[in-house]
Amino acid sequence: MSRYNVAVVGAAGLVGTQILKVMAERRFPLGELCLLATTRSAGRRIPFNGRELVVQETTVNSFDDIDIAFFCASKSASRELAPVAVSKGAVVIDKSNAFRMDPDVPLAVPEVNPRAIARHKGIVASPNCSTIQMVVALKPLHDAARIKRIVVSTYQAVSGTGRDALVELEDQSKEVLEGKEVTRSVYPHQIAFNVIPHIDAFDINGYSGEEMKMVRETQKIFEDESISISPTTVRVPVYMGHAESIMIETEKKLSAEAARDILRDAPGVVVVDDPGNGEYPMPIDCAGRDEVFVGRVREDLFCEKGLLLWVVADNLRKGAATNAVQIAEYLIQNDLLAR
Amino acid sequence: MSRYNVAVVGAAGLVGTQILKVMAERRFPLGELCLLATTRSAGRRIPFNGRELVVQETTVNSFDDIDIAFFCASKSASRELAPVAVSKGAVVIDKSNAFRMDPDVPLAVPEVNPRAIARHKGIVASPNCSTIQMVVALKPLHDAARIKRIVVSTYQAVSGTGRDALVELEDQSKEVLEGKEVTRSVYPHQIAFNVIPHIDAFDINGYSGEEMKMVRETQKIFEDESISISPTTVRVPVYMGHAESIMIETEKKLSAEAARDILRDAPGVVVVDDPGNGEYPMPIDCAGRDEVFVGRVREDLFCEKGLLLWVVADNLRKGAATNAVQIAEYLIQNDLLAR
Repeated sequence: MSRYNVAVVGAAGLVGTQILKVMAERRFPLGELCLLATTRSAGRRIPFNGRELVVQETTVNSFDDIDIAFFCASKSASRELAPVAVSKGAVVIDKSNAFRMDPDVPLAVPEVNPRAIARHKGIVASPNCSTIQMVVALKPLHDAARIKRIVVSTYQAVSGTGRDALVELEDQSKEVLEGKEVTRSVYPHQIAFNVIPHIDAFDINGYSGEEMKMVRETQKIFEDESISISPTTVRVPVYMGHAESIMIETEKKLSAEAARDILRDAPGVVVVDDPGNGEYPMPIDCAGRDEVFVGRVREDLFCEKGLLLWVVADNLRKGAATNAVQIAEYLIQNDLLAR
Repeated sequence: MSRYNVAVVGAAGLVGTQILKVMAERRFPLGELCLLATTRSAGRRIPFNGRELVVQETTVNSFDDIDIAFFCASKSASRELAPVAVSKGAVVIDKSNAFRMDPDVPLAVPEVNPRAIARHKGIVASPNCSTIQMVVALKPLHDAARIKRIVVSTYQAVSGTGRDALVELEDQSKEVLEGKEVTRSVYPHQIAFNVIPHIDAFDINGYSGEEMKMVRETQKIFEDESISISPTTVRVPVYMGHAESIMIETEKKLSAEAARDILRDAPGVVVVDDPGNGEYPMPIDCAGRDEVFVGRVREDLFCEKGLLLWVVADNLRKGAATNAVQIAEYLIQNDLLAR
């Protein structure tokens, strides 16, 4: 079996660390593994498969002989360095928002639109975490009954913001429990024991960046700009795992039972749906898992072709690292690397 | 000014305590105040306006000479004792779910459907907390443009469950922060650092009791059974304050600006809507307040007559105690007491 040289830009971050973990778990056919950072993390030692690797500062020579470069640092790092990596012959799998809406860049979720990956010109973008889990759950229903409309409200974990946010939730929770003044640095407001309807900067239309990502990315992935999407994205005091309350309207009527059957057969989806016995997906159960969990599937009481569902996934795994590694696996299996 | 003899059944509970607080704040024209309990709380001493009152066990004689009886204990206590109170000449304001859907019982939110109160036959029901804040925010928009459809996802505080749930959230949060095993007694799953899409028992149609309350109560309050309501109710690790992500479709087009103007003039509503400057309603800001806070008002990007909004209120104040006291004030001001 061939082995592939891999670089991870942002290797010390939450998503970078998960990419290493997921590659190890899935026995990714690794040749050289080069851990890169664009920031103060250079020099850090990171354990990997019994070895210890040193994070290196990214330079223009970092991508020599690299087959696959995962980018999970900042958007500006992707903008600046992804073209360098591509020019050296690597295929870039970019977790940032830098290229997602670029018509020349496939925006890919392997269970959903794998064939888009073949059209890459050096860069494949991985969608936003909240988009990934939604499209994995909805694509099989879209194929069966054509989704015309989506109304979605999210319950997003702080790990989506990064390592500092995990610390902030922990510190603030302790401060509240000890009756102390709450200190803030990551979020504009206290997140402990609160919910904040604000993820990413706001557009003049009143939608947040996160909400607009869910709209545009879903339309691009489904290759259908006619789908109506009404998103509200909200940060909740949870460490790991995003939840989404979703209402869809389909062109063809789907019963809840039919939808459940379709989802049970869908790739990457696990149906957990016995609410009477307390079984539905929850963040604490999905943390560390690669699948997208769907429950609370029920028919709209008034809209004949409406369905409601509740979707949970680990935002760092399927929402980020796992999806990126799956894209890399697809590139390998379908001979889509640059050399 | 006349003074009125008041009984509070469930006076030691979270809502009962708030009713006392709200009556004191609003200088309610109190005569005698009788604190009652149906449970182990009898004998407890509760401070009120500088005095200390002893909670008494409820008996058939507890309602002699009572003008207004607030019921904020269990549904079974209301079922059993509210008719007794009415037979003694009291008007019952019931916070439980016992009589809400009874066609002979008005289900009232004074800002929304005050005239229903006049039709009482001894009992006035106060709606579920999640319904109250939604109808206060939506009624003025309904009057202006007729709402045909509501899709709502809630983010509900644990105080809605009662005092034990506040303790459970606190204890579990400490356990998680200290790396200990989490203990449960109130909720079927860990609530600390988690979200649970389960409030009240599930119906065979897949909806929870809380969700069905939002449907039926809203239709009764708006006196319109044609309104389509698609609810998902979710418990979040917040102490005080429910939040709701709401999408509405109206018969007449309403711009976001027009909706904001209408809401600014609406009774009991405060508009907090400057997201670019981090201003939107949040549970931590609304705790202890009587109003319903509305923000994130924006037009649906695809549905011409669709609007999205974010509604937050203190579930123990406007969602329970304040609404009940306002109903009592309305009864007094409109000479609607039994004697």
